[in-house]
Amino acid sequence: MIENEYYSQDVHGPFELFSLGDFELEMGEKLRDGKIAYITRGTLNTAKDNAILFPHMYSGTHKHMEIFVSEGMALDPKEYFIILPGQIGNGLSTSPHNTPPPFGQAAFPKVTIGDDVRAQHKLVTEKFDIETLQLVLGWSMGAQQTYEWAVRYPDMVKRAAPIAGTAQVTPHDSIFIDSHMEAIKSDPAWNNGWYTEPHAVHIGLRRHARVWAVMGLSTQFYKEEAWRRAGYSSLEDFMVGFWEGYFLPMDPNDLLCMAWKWQHGDVSKNTGGDLEAALGRIKAKVFVMPFEEDMFFPVRDCEAEQKMIPNSELRPIPSLWGHFAMFGIFPEDKKAIEDLLKELLAVPVGVPTAVR
Amino acid sequence: MIENEYYSQDVHGPFELFSLGDFELEMGEKLRDGKIAYITRGTLNTAKDNAILFPHMYSGTHKHMEIFVSEGMALDPKEYFIILPGQIGNGLSTSPHNTPPPFGQAAFPKVTIGDDVRAQHKLVTEKFDIETLQLVLGWSMGAQQTYEWAVRYPDMVKRAAPIAGTAQVTPHDSIFIDSHMEAIKSDPAWNNGWYTEPHAVHIGLRRHARVWAVMGLSTQFYKEEAWRRAGYSSLEDFMVGFWEGYFLPMDPNDLLCMAWKWQHGDVSKNTGGDLEAALGRIKAKVFVMPFEEDMFFPVRDCEAEQKMIPNSELRPIPSLWGHFAMFGIFPEDKKAIEDLLKELLAVPVGVPTAVR
Repeated sequence: MIENEYYSQDVHGPFELFSLGDFELEMGEKLRDGKIAYITRGTLNTAKDNAILFPHMYSGTHKHMEIFVSEGMALDPKEYFIILPGQIGNGLSTSPHNTPPPFGQAAFPKVTIGDDVRAQHKLVTEKFDIETLQLVLGWSMGAQQTYEWAVRYPDMVKRAAPIAGTAQVTPHDSIFIDSHMEAIKSDPAWNNGWYTEPHAVHIGLRRHARVWAVMGLSTQFYKEEAWRRAGYSSLEDFMVGFWEGYFLPMDPNDLLCMAWKWQHGDVSKNTGGDLEAALGRIKAKVFVMPFEEDMFFPVRDCEAEQKMIPNSELRPIPSLWGHFAMFGIFPEDKKAIEDLLKELLAVPVGVPTAVR
Repeated sequence: MIENEYYSQDVHGPFELFSLGDFELEMGEKLRDGKIAYITRGTLNTAKDNAILFPHMYSGTHKHMEIFVSEGMALDPKEYFIILPGQIGNGLSTSPHNTPPPFGQAAFPKVTIGDDVRAQHKLVTEKFDIETLQLVLGWSMGAQQTYEWAVRYPDMVKRAAPIAGTAQVTPHDSIFIDSHMEAIKSDPAWNNGWYTEPHAVHIGLRRHARVWAVMGLSTQFYKEEAWRRAGYSSLEDFMVGFWEGYFLPMDPNDLLCMAWKWQHGDVSKNTGGDLEAALGRIKAKVFVMPFEEDMFFPVRDCEAEQKMIPNSELRPIPSLWGHFAMFGIFPEDKKAIEDLLKELLAVPVGVPTAVR
């Protein structure tokens, strides 16, 4: 086990742990005494039908998505009971760095998007006794989980908002994931996953950050020096301050666990490889919400899937931030996302009983 | 010096060397006994006004561009005298790997696009006594050289076809270049440039190839498994066979020399940093020819420059191959490029005298 101060309540705020017990994974291995970290906001009504589930992206925790949860916003805790579950491997949930031998670090089992969603389903149904989710939404890997939820539990999910992500990983995403995993693994300090100090792999993490810098935003973002508006004084200041600063505190094996999961995300596993059949199962009202300048989840890829979803609309969002529009650093991006979520929540599909 | 069998006439066909003597470089250093490799096709007419200059891209030599030179094609050696000059640092010209101590390998001086163009100008004017170029064209770094020619020697260049490249490096290109340079430099075998065996850095070169794989083609290329049409049996077969196979024989320091040059390409150095003034100098008829799916020279960036060029047209070319459409692996891509070059050469701007 590795002690890493980043994965603490000091940094991420108070959170709960939901115990999965011994949890069998799709790839055949098992989490021993598995736990997922989560937070909730708002109050579950007596009918238990005002819940929203909001899983998170690669490298993230509930904290990164919590910026979309606030009174007056679409995800209003006065109206909804909002659950923000942590991915397995996110550093707060059971993860490579916090798992004792013999199953920690490089020996941590392979986890899938389906595993996360099954774990979240246990949380939602067993802990909270919820059978209806007004909305499942998520960005990037959160979109993968959103699609998996809508396909796997079509009767539970009333609305879905997959934001800048796909139901089935694309080959281009796969090679991009390879390239950023390699950026970490090529650091000799990674030592096949058997480093002993939490920040031993800092060179690999910086390299990983710079691969993300190439793909994560838009070419136009850099052309317009939009980093100035975000408070950076030069391109290099932005590269170090934003990109390296973001990834540097994290655990390399935790990132690799999530990266592998992303690379193998595919809802068609539920239907013997038939993507159209999988997406055809979805009963939710779906807004497919790509970011127009996204370099690795292009609108075209999201649209191809949207066309296979019965009750769906393609609702692209423009932003210079490309894939990272969801960080909401420019208020207009956050507002555009907000507005679509409000619109989706206003669609009359099993309207929740008011909080009592 | 490193012996590398790749940089031979066996591999690249017969070529000539033009001696630059001691050649002062823009950054202040000097090439001792500098040489540029080149080939010519066709015959220079007596008026010496039927010449075309066709410099090449990053990682390339004249050989890669020669596929566009043939009887019946736009660049027809029956009509034109076509010069294909090699970049300094391309492995055939004076380069890090073939320069003796103390100036070889990691001690090789920094070279700029302006240096290449001045060297080519010496070749064109001193060796061939040519004062008029019917066309300068080039792809990627070849486009950088094309723009530099048109800005630096506006009275010599009658037509210009910068293909999938920019006159001024973009910030996004710069961070992409950093990421693929880092892929090489992070291999411990690179040893700050002081490896002793030609293929010592093969792991870094494979990593470099895979960074290129992410950015070099289009997301849709991978989605449609277009590599099948190019004769590959799986994505991994394509990654190794096409991408790694392409870069693996090359010299890492030679690549880094060209990468740095690319990263610092900027015609506005000729006008005190004023890009509009630089491009405004151009007298040539210019077809700006971006590839529509290019991920690092997007049409938008090329169009922004095109608008600053007096007698120019934006002529985008669609291709699943993205930036690598110029490899001409799909005949329709090659034909689209060909057709535009024929159209440009047909524009009546100082028509050449027939070959006699």
